[in-house]
Amino acid sequence: MEIKIKQQLAKYWFSILQDIICLEVENLEKEYGSNIKFIKNKWKHGEFRTIKGKVIEKGGVAFSNVIGKFPKEFAKKIPGTKNNTNFWSSGISVVLHPRNPKVPAMHFNTRFISTQKSWFGGGIDITPCLVDNKEKKNFHNEIKKMCNLHNKKYYIKYKKNCDEYFYLAHRKELRGIGGIFFDYKMDNWKKDFSFIKDVGNTFTYLIKEIAKKKMFKKWTKKEKEIQLLKRGRYTEFNLMYDRGTKFGLNSGGNPEAILMSMPPVAKWK
Amino acid sequence: MEIKIKQQLAKYWFSILQDIICLEVENLEKEYGSNIKFIKNKWKHGEFRTIKGKVIEKGGVAFSNVIGKFPKEFAKKIPGTKNNTNFWSSGISVVLHPRNPKVPAMHFNTRFISTQKSWFGGGIDITPCLVDNKEKKNFHNEIKKMCNLHNKKYYIKYKKNCDEYFYLAHRKELRGIGGIFFDYKMDNWKKDFSFIKDVGNTFTYLIKEIAKKKMFKKWTKKEKEIQLLKRGRYTEFNLMYDRGTKFGLNSGGNPEAILMSMPPVAKWK
Repeated sequence: MEIKIKQQLAKYWFSILQDIICLEVENLEKEYGSNIKFIKNKWKHGEFRTIKGKVIEKGGVAFSNVIGKFPKEFAKKIPGTKNNTNFWSSGISVVLHPRNPKVPAMHFNTRFISTQKSWFGGGIDITPCLVDNKEKKNFHNEIKKMCNLHNKKYYIKYKKNCDEYFYLAHRKELRGIGGIFFDYKMDNWKKDFSFIKDVGNTFTYLIKEIAKKKMFKKWTKKEKEIQLLKRGRYTEFNLMYDRGTKFGLNSGGNPEAILMSMPPVAKWK
Repeated sequence: MEIKIKQQLAKYWFSILQDIICLEVENLEKEYGSNIKFIKNKWKHGEFRTIKGKVIEKGGVAFSNVIGKFPKEFAKKIPGTKNNTNFWSSGISVVLHPRNPKVPAMHFNTRFISTQKSWFGGGIDITPCLVDNKEKKNFHNEIKKMCNLHNKKYYIKYKKNCDEYFYLAHRKELRGIGGIFFDYKMDNWKKDFSFIKDVGNTFTYLIKEIAKKKMFKKWTKKEKEIQLLKRGRYTEFNLMYDRGTKFGLNSGGNPEAILMSMPPVAKWK
């Protein structure tokens, strides 16, 4: 298949998935009794949608399609840029910060990037601020089931990546309870794309599953405080380590769109 | 003068200055009618003191004296480490986040570092969240006066450094209203040390001057909101750009002490 067609298909999927995820989040809001919808912010390379709801205190769902040249220094770390720093990229990125501290923060993204090479990347991970082993088990089971449909080796490998990636070295802490994370995926385009779509669908399903179980539960002031401190750590990770943030800011991304991942409020002791 | 003696003198000064600054902040609290004091946190390479007061919502005054080896990659950016990555460092670092949004956040640090070379670095800068041109003018005048006592060229040079340094490239915004910033200062040890002491004394004076003028003033909810958003930017700067943070985390510093610069609460739109 020609690269241009692959790009079109990937881009089209990311754009549809943006609609689906926004719809599901808006449905959660409706079920909770709020009528709050996403606000759409268009910019020259995409559209990021943000919501400040009753269930999702702050959420962002960004679709982008950026074509450009990497800065030279940055290009050194990117495959297929030796003779040519041009790139094409498209992706979807989601961060949901729920109001209720019992509901974990949820994060997902998938992307397709072409230089002289081309690959998919992405992942799903959640960050609870209160311990819930049952939720953790269910979450990992759902992801494992989906991975196993594609390749029995994916789950273990991508779970390990995720734990290594979402790690705050300076704090010696994991960001959350993991999930899956993969990058530079260029095995077989059709199979990879089919996996990418399932990652998106599974995340959409998990949003509902996870939020519905707890969004109506009461929380204490202390639990909210724990959430705000946990969000401080989330902020540290995103600004200090996150490759997506660095990639975005280095590839002419929109800072408002990239930093929509920031929590609404965060605290430090 | 032998390097060991220089190190002792610098270290001794930073440690005294920590006492002086804490005392001045506690005096401000007293004047406001609060009896809140700093809490002292000792760790193996120093002591950081934190306060959660009525005037200063969150403040940190850290003294450190770290001896060690730089990680190889990091050492490449540091003078005098070509054949030997050992270093000696001592410094004081202060960040004050006032409760009243009319009072700017205040930041200062000075340090003495030895590798095969040795130098001073540091600076003063403030970050108001509301425009006050008179305050800005007074602040810069005080700093300029002090600089001129040492060298007529310092103010212009170090002010420029400061504006370049405290810049959020991804936002295309200055962090605050500047001040002075200098690094790798190794002209003449005695003169440099005398300048370093005056930078510390001037900051101590400025804390009082700036806070006293406004700490009793009422503020609106909207002004507080502006402050919290401005603190979001402050967080972005510290985690994404600040060399002190990077230096600290790369030289075996205490993450709790280094990240005491984080605001108590920050918001993102």
